[in-house]
Amino acid sequence: MKDLGHGANVDVIAQKYNLNPRDIIDFSSNINPSVIPGLEKYILEGLRACTSYPDINYVNLRSNISDYININPNFIIPGNGATEIIYLMMKSIGKSIAILNPTFSEYERSARLNNLEITNILLDKNNNFEVDIDNIEANIDKFDSLFICNPNNPNGKVKKIENLLELLQKHDKLLIVDETFMEFVENEEGYSLIKYVEEYDNIFILKAVTKFFGLPGLRLGYGVTSNERIIENIYKYKEPWTINSFADNLSNYIFKEEDYIKNSKKYYINEREYMLKSLREIKSIRVYDTDTNFILIKLRQNTASELKNKLIEQGKILIRDASNFIGLDESFIRVAIKSHEENEKLIKHMKNLLGD
Amino acid sequence: MKDLGHGANVDVIAQKYNLNPRDIIDFSSNINPSVIPGLEKYILEGLRACTSYPDINYVNLRSNISDYININPNFIIPGNGATEIIYLMMKSIGKSIAILNPTFSEYERSARLNNLEITNILLDKNNNFEVDIDNIEANIDKFDSLFICNPNNPNGKVKKIENLLELLQKHDKLLIVDETFMEFVENEEGYSLIKYVEEYDNIFILKAVTKFFGLPGLRLGYGVTSNERIIENIYKYKEPWTINSFADNLSNYIFKEEDYIKNSKKYYINEREYMLKSLREIKSIRVYDTDTNFILIKLRQNTASELKNKLIEQGKILIRDASNFIGLDESFIRVAIKSHEENEKLIKHMKNLLGD
Repeated sequence: MKDLGHGANVDVIAQKYNLNPRDIIDFSSNINPSVIPGLEKYILEGLRACTSYPDINYVNLRSNISDYININPNFIIPGNGATEIIYLMMKSIGKSIAILNPTFSEYERSARLNNLEITNILLDKNNNFEVDIDNIEANIDKFDSLFICNPNNPNGKVKKIENLLELLQKHDKLLIVDETFMEFVENEEGYSLIKYVEEYDNIFILKAVTKFFGLPGLRLGYGVTSNERIIENIYKYKEPWTINSFADNLSNYIFKEEDYIKNSKKYYINEREYMLKSLREIKSIRVYDTDTNFILIKLRQNTASELKNKLIEQGKILIRDASNFIGLDESFIRVAIKSHEENEKLIKHMKNLLGD
Repeated sequence: MKDLGHGANVDVIAQKYNLNPRDIIDFSSNINPSVIPGLEKYILEGLRACTSYPDINYVNLRSNISDYININPNFIIPGNGATEIIYLMMKSIGKSIAILNPTFSEYERSARLNNLEITNILLDKNNNFEVDIDNIEANIDKFDSLFICNPNNPNGKVKKIENLLELLQKHDKLLIVDETFMEFVENEEGYSLIKYVEEYDNIFILKAVTKFFGLPGLRLGYGVTSNERIIENIYKYKEPWTINSFADNLSNYIFKEEDYIKNSKKYYINEREYMLKSLREIKSIRVYDTDTNFILIKLRQNTASELKNKLIEQGKILIRDASNFIGLDESFIRVAIKSHEENEKLIKHMKNLLGD
């Protein structure tokens, strides 16, 4: 695969620096490190299911997701990660799309591969990446659909976007929201647009099971919309059996893990505060506010690639060089919030390298 | 998902007949019932890998497949089942394709969704579905690529197709061979075109790990070609992280399971003979020869849907109504070869219903 510019390239880095991949602490991908209790049991149960084809209609899986987010199962389209749904959606909407940048690069790649006309609208990095509703309105004739990630990757700050929904509603445009990091947000219900999906048919929401539940290798995400034309288009193109039996079976359990969900949310509330406070003791960096499990940082003295190299060499720590995000430059890095012990190690090494 | 006309719709049937899905014996999907020893251990190891993103380049996975089929790892494109590779390939080849029918319906669906011009060439059901090379040559100007499944689904008879390769080579056309059932064939090496892939760049072969190894819910297949233009096109479109960590990790073990592979092959050699002999005692059906793990049958007195209904009602046995394959009609059914005990049960019920 050619380099798509994502993080999590632990094996490549290990080879380059002659390290054992297991020794590298990966701060470049944003995964909850906490493990669901009972996971081994559920996975072995999934193994038995694995000797048959998954249900091509994913009736049980959609029903489990439906109970979790309280939405009609017919409005839920499960996928091999959110990624499958992003690509299917790009085939199934209009001809032109606006993307709020900097953000996850697969939105643009999938739009481009499906020949959509793309307008990149920049969030202002000097104003905490605020959504500039006037600027969007000024560009309204350039797109049928607008794509926003909330909380946004790479900056992690959640936004209230009811005014954006209202604007797009007024102009008969589709609002696509990637909410794959929404579960990390303290007041999730206050920010998620899931509650409007059954009422408005111009919303499409992307969710991923595997980030908040710490299982990116499981490959499970889903799209949510009540727009019947889009649902029909997606199933016209959807390939059969894309979700594996382990993911299908695990859906019977993970959404009911109330303690895991509550404790993970609580952990991130506290750990964000600790990380932001500790990182802000370093004078030569600007640390952006976050509501999720990663932090965007602007370096004032080093380049991202310099710091990335030094952290690998001195601490076997892998961070995300964020210079390839549209609208950012070589002064930006992104780090995940991992276990407290790992976070302490990152902060210690960053302070060593950058000074207090 | 709208009905794509595949088998394995156990849940739908269970609901229709008010049965527990676990009580249904599924002869409609073609899966090796034998379980790899040590599987649980490997899966739990995969669970640990699952807490990170899969390697986007699948270096280790491709290396394992490379050792198994003795092909340069750069010529191996792993996928979420063979299905992902079928769809990617259709985006990555020429503008027109010939498909030898009756066969697996996803070839046509994927070709249609990618706007390829399709020519369906019929295999002669009155002549054991032989490949008519003269007929293909007569149609040679109608396609850039020709798609054949070998052994073919639904009839299961393997064919020597070197003459087809030579013909297409001469006319500068691509030969696509779905060999996902090839490992069930007694003299696999004699029939598989894998041995020509490095020499000829007009071959594209599809393989699936999960049929022969009995794990369709794992979702692991791959394409093999030395055609660099096609490989480049595929990676242009390929979505990241489509293969889950369980599949990636399991590849460290399954291909080295020599006893499992040998015993499965031996089982099918004997069981095919038993099944063909027993089924041929039923006078009112025609049983086609097979070299793989399923059997095509033509009914002379009943329709496929009548027999399918009766077998569910009387034996909780699900067979594949094969009437929706192009070139077949409502007199055709397909049954898998399962465990000996299950096969005995199928034969007993078929004899009850159809007479000796």
